Amino acid sequence: MGSIKDKVAIIGVGCTKFGELWEKDPEDLVVEAAYEALDDAGVAPDDVQAAWIGILYPFTGLSGNTFSDPMKLFGIPVTRVENYCASGMDAFRNACYAVASGVYDVVVACGVEKLMDTGSAGLPMQGFSHPVFGGVSAPGLFALAATRCFNEYGWTKEDLARVAVKNHKNGALHPKAHFRRPITMEDALSAPMIAWPLGRFDCCAMSDGSAALVITRPEIAEKSKHKDDYVLVMANALATATGRPMFSNSTDFLGFPATRYAAKAAYAEAGVKDPAKEISLAEVHDCFSITEILNYQDLGFCAQGDGAAFVAEGHADVDGDLPVNASGGLKCFGHPIGATGCRMLYEVTKQLQGRADGAQVKNARLGLAHNLGGPGSVCSVTILGRKD
Amino acid sequence: MGSIKDKVAIIGVGCTKFGELWEKDPEDLVVEAAYEALDDAGVAPDDVQAAWIGILYPFTGLSGNTFSDPMKLFGIPVTRVENYCASGMDAFRNACYAVASGVYDVVVACGVEKLMDTGSAGLPMQGFSHPVFGGVSAPGLFALAATRCFNEYGWTKEDLARVAVKNHKNGALHPKAHFRRPITMEDALSAPMIAWPLGRFDCCAMSDGSAALVITRPEIAEKSKHKDDYVLVMANALATATGRPMFSNSTDFLGFPATRYAAKAAYAEAGVKDPAKEISLAEVHDCFSITEILNYQDLGFCAQGDGAAFVAEGHADVDGDLPVNASGGLKCFGHPIGATGCRMLYEVTKQLQGRADGAQVKNARLGLAHNLGGPGSVCSVTILGRKD
Repeated sequence: MGSIKDKVAIIGVGCTKFGELWEKDPEDLVVEAAYEALDDAGVAPDDVQAAWIGILYPFTGLSGNTFSDPMKLFGIPVTRVENYCASGMDAFRNACYAVASGVYDVVVACGVEKLMDTGSAGLPMQGFSHPVFGGVSAPGLFALAATRCFNEYGWTKEDLARVAVKNHKNGALHPKAHFRRPITMEDALSAPMIAWPLGRFDCCAMSDGSAALVITRPEIAEKSKHKDDYVLVMANALATATGRPMFSNSTDFLGFPATRYAAKAAYAEAGVKDPAKEISLAEVHDCFSITEILNYQDLGFCAQGDGAAFVAEGHADVDGDLPVNASGGLKCFGHPIGATGCRMLYEVTKQLQGRADGAQVKNARLGLAHNLGGPGSVCSVTILGRKD
Repeated sequence: MGSIKDKVAIIGVGCTKFGELWEKDPEDLVVEAAYEALDDAGVAPDDVQAAWIGILYPFTGLSGNTFSDPMKLFGIPVTRVENYCASGMDAFRNACYAVASGVYDVVVACGVEKLMDTGSAGLPMQGFSHPVFGGVSAPGLFALAATRCFNEYGWTKEDLARVAVKNHKNGALHPKAHFRRPITMEDALSAPMIAWPLGRFDCCAMSDGSAALVITRPEIAEKSKHKDDYVLVMANALATATGRPMFSNSTDFLGFPATRYAAKAAYAEAGVKDPAKEISLAEVHDCFSITEILNYQDLGFCAQGDGAAFVAEGHADVDGDLPVNASGGLKCFGHPIGATGCRMLYEVTKQLQGRADGAQVKNARLGLAHNLGGPGSVCSVTILGRKD
């Protein structure tokens, strides 16, 4: 196996404001994100040679036309990638391979989802209707991980609440976040219960949004508008675990094998030996507060069992030694499914370039984005680095 | 833009029997096709580094787990690609880029669909419910192309019937085809009408099936079980046209712009100057008899307006100068949507290797596979060549 390292560069990023965008169609969101990315790259729409669109929800959009129709880009290839909640980052991954193969010079990866119109009840998740756990919800599933960890490690609702407080503090500063207000520990702890021990502030919201990236080879990036601050793709890992890990007797509910697989592959590909020391910042999949804590462990930011301490001790703060979700995360952006992975890459790119929309991480050189789906059956880990 | 040419090789292919496979799940079909391909390649399942799965129908399978779960291949990346009826060939295309990028050595591309359990009524094709053409069916849409061509070129039901007779003659010889009996012109012309002028034998059937390919780089293929007869990927084009061409006022119903875009790109990538002379054989998307005739034209096998003569004069016969659908085509295999593109590539590969299951085309050196979807909004064209 080889590596994507030094073969692919990001030269433009775009992102809509996330939120309850009742007045916008998915087509509007794609156009808004993609045109912002193209403008950022200084690339004309007609210069796009191929595109990839990440979207889960078949009733919002189907096939490559989800991108080509609103963009009026006909004659070029557009692939739809769907991989549960990791759809957006996997669309980006496939776009990277196509560029690295030498076939295309300039391509776009875009993620989009519109959840407000139909809600997750419309999602094609018949898998949730398992004969044993029939009809369980996403909060209900992730709550099982929280209770198991409470029992195993002695974590508490306070440990979960610290994640929500940190992410709301960050999200309050981000102009594109859905929720833009700080919350207190008391707010988080007294919020209505969704699925014990996960209260309202432990769960990410339903949102609409889109994000896009313009990708090329480094030699072309060297002549681009962002020639001085383009971002290199250092690793592009995806891993599948069993399709319904939380319905499996072998699941220990103490972490996600898919994340561990993908992290191991990504670190090997990027040549990262000690992620806790080498990674400057991370956007991780905090669909629930407990997930973010488990991600710290699965990604090797801290030892197994130390996830709650990692956030409590401030390591994950914007001014900590490994800032996590400086954007506000899924907690403040919500999780329009296909969009999230590309939104994370948008954020990491701008952080590395020193032009974050919200809270800026200092001296960021190597950034990680982590997108979990399935729930827990698939994980995408991308590592981006500054050109210099 | 560059080319995939000489960067990717096919070293193993597998295909289930297509048909009404009531006793099999999609998981059974994936395992059957993929294990046949791995066995053909002499590659162990554990040596597969990544996979791509093409599937349209979200209620049959979702995400990469559609492949990883039945194959019990965990820890590796599996991407689901969906691009209407071209899903299978686009999965293969993305797998090729990943190999050509140098990141992976050995990967699998697989397509699968199971239509019998729910029928196309379950397909997520709400787009068919257009306010103008509300509720029109696929035969109803393609019938519009037939009537337009009857008017423009003087083609008749006999011209359509010749396609069905040719394909049934071929399919009768193929052990994996759904329908394996020859039909006469009288059979075709007297069949029950579906959507005038398309009768039962002008329409492909509903079927279940799966097909898979093992892909690697040529230098690895040189040491493989198929070192003497592996097949090279010469071009890998995909093109989108407007999402609902047959609902567009600008459509002339005399061909498919997506096919013309993709063919042009594929010929440029493979260095083909005169397809009618250089292509040895083709598997084309004959979802309806009229589609196959229009494909001849759109692919440059003959001039615009000469499609009906092309089949009438025997050019498309197995012993003609450009055999088309020597397998029996969609007409005899049916069209389990995600599977079809990979099934075509299976066929073209074995034809080029001189080991076709059914009718063998003589001296095949360059083969083309054409997968149309949308209907008409997306097209994939792959060109394969013998190693020597």
